[in-house]
Amino acid sequence: MRHPTKPILEVLSGNRQQIPPVWFMRQAGRYLPEYRALRDRAGSFLKLCFTPELAAEVTLQPIRRFGFDAAILFSDILVVPHALGRRVTFEAGEGPRLEPLDEASKIKTLRTDVDASVLAPVYEAVRLVKRDLPPHVALIGFCGAPWTVATYMIAGCGTPDQAPARMLAYSQPAAFARLIDILVDVSSHYLAAQIKAGAEAVQIFDTWAGVLPPREFSAWCIEPVRRIVENVRREIPDAKIIAFPRGAGASLPSYVDGVPVDAVSIDWTAEPAFVREHVQPRVAVQGNLDPIVLLAGGDALDRAVDDVLTNYADAPFVFNLGHGILPETPIAHVERTLARIRQA
Amino acid sequence: MRHPTKPILEVLSGNRQQIPPVWFMRQAGRYLPEYRALRDRAGSFLKLCFTPELAAEVTLQPIRRFGFDAAILFSDILVVPHALGRRVTFEAGEGPRLEPLDEASKIKTLRTDVDASVLAPVYEAVRLVKRDLPPHVALIGFCGAPWTVATYMIAGCGTPDQAPARMLAYSQPAAFARLIDILVDVSSHYLAAQIKAGAEAVQIFDTWAGVLPPREFSAWCIEPVRRIVENVRREIPDAKIIAFPRGAGASLPSYVDGVPVDAVSIDWTAEPAFVREHVQPRVAVQGNLDPIVLLAGGDALDRAVDDVLTNYADAPFVFNLGHGILPETPIAHVERTLARIRQA
Repeated sequence: MRHPTKPILEVLSGNRQQIPPVWFMRQAGRYLPEYRALRDRAGSFLKLCFTPELAAEVTLQPIRRFGFDAAILFSDILVVPHALGRRVTFEAGEGPRLEPLDEASKIKTLRTDVDASVLAPVYEAVRLVKRDLPPHVALIGFCGAPWTVATYMIAGCGTPDQAPARMLAYSQPAAFARLIDILVDVSSHYLAAQIKAGAEAVQIFDTWAGVLPPREFSAWCIEPVRRIVENVRREIPDAKIIAFPRGAGASLPSYVDGVPVDAVSIDWTAEPAFVREHVQPRVAVQGNLDPIVLLAGGDALDRAVDDVLTNYADAPFVFNLGHGILPETPIAHVERTLARIRQA
Repeated sequence: MRHPTKPILEVLSGNRQQIPPVWFMRQAGRYLPEYRALRDRAGSFLKLCFTPELAAEVTLQPIRRFGFDAAILFSDILVVPHALGRRVTFEAGEGPRLEPLDEASKIKTLRTDVDASVLAPVYEAVRLVKRDLPPHVALIGFCGAPWTVATYMIAGCGTPDQAPARMLAYSQPAAFARLIDILVDVSSHYLAAQIKAGAEAVQIFDTWAGVLPPREFSAWCIEPVRRIVENVRREIPDAKIIAFPRGAGASLPSYVDGVPVDAVSIDWTAEPAFVREHVQPRVAVQGNLDPIVLLAGGDALDRAVDDVLTNYADAPFVFNLGHGILPETPIAHVERTLARIRQA
């Protein structure tokens, strides 16, 4: 069993830090000139994800520039569908595109295991990052939650409220459950392999958890992630796991009851008194600055940073955004935010 | 003071009905062949809204076909920006388009009162509907909440999370507050005039309430709607008012604390135990069938209807959708839902 000494691992073990550790979702990305230069050289986004030296370099860029307390592996939640043989493309300026799995018959013929050679470069990138990471910085791996990955696989792209997946789940529940089961298995192995390669924690991103009614939230968000956590811990009993059920709102307590994670990441719309009363006594919390206020900067940013600290930092807490950093975000605003957190 | 005798007005007065009254958001609309025929004849969506005979006819169509317990005036939340002199267009198959109010300087020159002649046909439509309504059916008027209307005025269209308005509210708070103040005044008069023309209740739609952090939710959702409710009740003390802060989630109790409405409409993602404990003891609740399950039909629809009734119908409750009915919804699914609610 590892003994955590890095601030973020301390928080994930339930030990509040005087100055909360901080990292930002999508901290390795387009708002950084050094990232844009490297992506231009690489050619495509998937090339960047699947070339270990490039993925490792991109992962390390924000650590060198800002001194974040965690690095998050540079990759994408859609490498899993890609490894399942689905065609995935990322066009500049647009979201991802996949061949839609929009009929039960297409789900029935979906392969049930990944092509291991497709994901091997990801594990190699983990090893390369780990080798070059400063001693106090932890490396976080990740995957998409089955529900969220399924919504993209079914619609073939992001949509305002992922209606195509909701529709398929209602009208073809057996086929939809098969897709979720495949994603549970594959994601469990994928996370365990990232940890074995050197990731010290993993985060499960359920970006679209907030669009489901309670019965479906339980069946398609809570249950599949619970199974992944169990599968990973069967192989790695002390695996540190963060879940991010974006938009879960008043369902957060049921979520942390159902999914035994070490931390839950909350979005910027969370209600502080509710989270303090019903969530923080049970798990560490991570979040939740509005990415738009980080873009806006100025007094509004200072006040928002202070609000997050006041709301959540009296218990085990990791400072983060409520969603990914936006490509237009000025670097000076990130620096200002880190300085404010660390002077607090 | 009116003495309510219609089922939905009874619920809004706090009296639970054995069979909950039911209406659907956007029940007058594109899923109805008789609506599509009339819209084709009218030419444009705004022509339909501003021709009293046509708006009244469209409002009455779903009452005749399904026997809903309430008619909701056929109109759009963007008639208010239109009456403020902003250009608003509705293209078939797309959302609305407005000239964006994307700079503080444009907000500073915005007129502060509406052109009364623009809205007069709305009040005439209310009178025409009222004359022809069956005795047990109530007429509901409405407006958009200032925050939601502002998000469309600023962006010029709907966006995935209304980032342009959030950005302007952070970076230009004085200009943004001016826009909200104008919308509070205009919306207060607009609702009061609808009630004086014969509307028996009004609903304030805050479709985008769910994208704000707590400080901004309080400033831009709760406060403006509280002021509208106060303004309307100053003129009409017993005005029945429903608010729909879509996506408010765990902030619903703060919302009903801050905004003294007769009912709160909840979306399909609400957490039932939380709403029963923290919302239903204070106000009547309306909602919250997922519009996608109404589209899907079958066993999933029956189970979802039963879930809504089980979750909420033991207290004063109005059955509705969690958001507007979708244009592709089969009429048979609406009939099946009404039959199931009324046999219960």
